[in-house]
Amino acid sequence: MKIVIVGATGTIGKAVVKELGARHEIVQVGKTHGQYQVDIADSTSIRTLFEKVGKIDAIISTTGSLHFGPLSEMTAEQFRIGLESKLLGQVDLALIGQNYLHDGGSVTLTGGILSEEPIRYGTNATTVNLALEGFVRAASVELQRGLRINVVSPTIVRESLEKFGAYMPGFEAVPASRVALAYVRSIEGVQTGKVYRVF
Amino acid sequence: MKIVIVGATGTIGKAVVKELGARHEIVQVGKTHGQYQVDIADSTSIRTLFEKVGKIDAIISTTGSLHFGPLSEMTAEQFRIGLESKLLGQVDLALIGQNYLHDGGSVTLTGGILSEEPIRYGTNATTVNLALEGFVRAASVELQRGLRINVVSPTIVRESLEKFGAYMPGFEAVPASRVALAYVRSIEGVQTGKVYRVF
Repeated sequence: MKIVIVGATGTIGKAVVKELGARHEIVQVGKTHGQYQVDIADSTSIRTLFEKVGKIDAIISTTGSLHFGPLSEMTAEQFRIGLESKLLGQVDLALIGQNYLHDGGSVTLTGGILSEEPIRYGTNATTVNLALEGFVRAASVELQRGLRINVVSPTIVRESLEKFGAYMPGFEAVPASRVALAYVRSIEGVQTGKVYRVF
Repeated sequence: MKIVIVGATGTIGKAVVKELGARHEIVQVGKTHGQYQVDIADSTSIRTLFEKVGKIDAIISTTGSLHFGPLSEMTAEQFRIGLESKLLGQVDLALIGQNYLHDGGSVTLTGGILSEEPIRYGTNATTVNLALEGFVRAASVELQRGLRINVVSPTIVRESLEKFGAYMPGFEAVPASRVALAYVRSIEGVQTGKVYRVF
C-alpha cells in the first residue's frame, strides 16, 4: 500500500513509520520536516500536498495541537487552538483526503485517552479528542467507495513521560511502538468507525 | 433562582421558560428577540450580556447552529459553522459565564441525540454534540466554588418534526415540554458532568 503519514516526524509518527515501513510505501509528511510539508490548519496546503503525492491507499494523521490551561481563566481564543488544529486540521485531512484515496482505502486519525479520562487543565483536550471520536462515528457510515475511517486513542507514550508525565499522574505509559500497532490494525484490518484504545 | 436562558425564544427554549418560569426569575436572551440579545460567536457580546444581567444562579443554553450536508463535498469552512456556533459558542457561554455565577450555580448546555446516532449529512452534528459531552465531562471536574455543568441531549422534538423529520427517519419525537424537564433536573438537582438523554 501507498500510505501518507502526516506527523511522521513526531514521537508516535516515527513509530508508525517504523512499523509500516517494512512492507508498505510510506510518504512521510511533517510541518517543517519529512519528505513533504503541510499546514493542516490550511485547506489549500492540504490540497497541494495530496496533488503532489497523488492517489494513495491510506492516510494516517498523528498530529495536531491542543491548549492546556486552567478552566477558570480559559478564553475562546485559547479553546480555538485545539478546535482549529487537532480537530479541524485532522477532519480536513479526511475531508480533502477522501478524494485521493483508492476504493477501499482508509483514514486513521489520532485522538487520546483524555476523551475518557479528564485531567486538570485538560478541558480542551477532552473536548477535541471526543469530538474526533464523534467525527469518525458519523463519517464512517457516510463514506463512499468502501472507504473506512478510524481513530487511535492512545494513553501517554513512554517517550513523552518526562515532558508530560507530571500532568497525568497515575496514567500508565505505553511505548510508542505499541501504539503504532493500532494504526496497523486500522489500516490492514476491516473495521470502520472504530476507536482503537491503547491503554 | 435567577436563571439566564440563552436561546429562550427557540422551540426548546420556550418550553424551558414555561417550565421554570413559575418558580424562578428568568432572563430571556435571544439573538434578535428576548429581553436581552447576544451573539454567542462573539466573546465581547457574551461579556456585555453578563455585565448587564449581573450575578445569576444558573445559565441555560438552548442555542447554536450546525452544518448539514453530504460528507463527500464537505469543506472545512462548512465544518467550522458548528465548531464556532453550537460548540465554541456554548463553551464560551460557560467559560465567561462561570465568573458571573453565585457559588453552587450551574451551567446547562444543549447537545443532541446525533452524538450517539449518526444520520446521513450529520457529520458536523455528531462531532459537535459529542464534543459538548466531552467539554462537560472535563469542565465538571475542574469548575470551582461548587459550580456544576451538564448537557441535555434531546432527540428531535415533536414541534420540529415537519421541518427536520425527513432527515431523521425512525427517530421517535418527544414534545419540547418533556425535554424541558431535563433542564430542571440539571438546575435543581445535584449532578455534574452528566449527559441528560431525552430519547
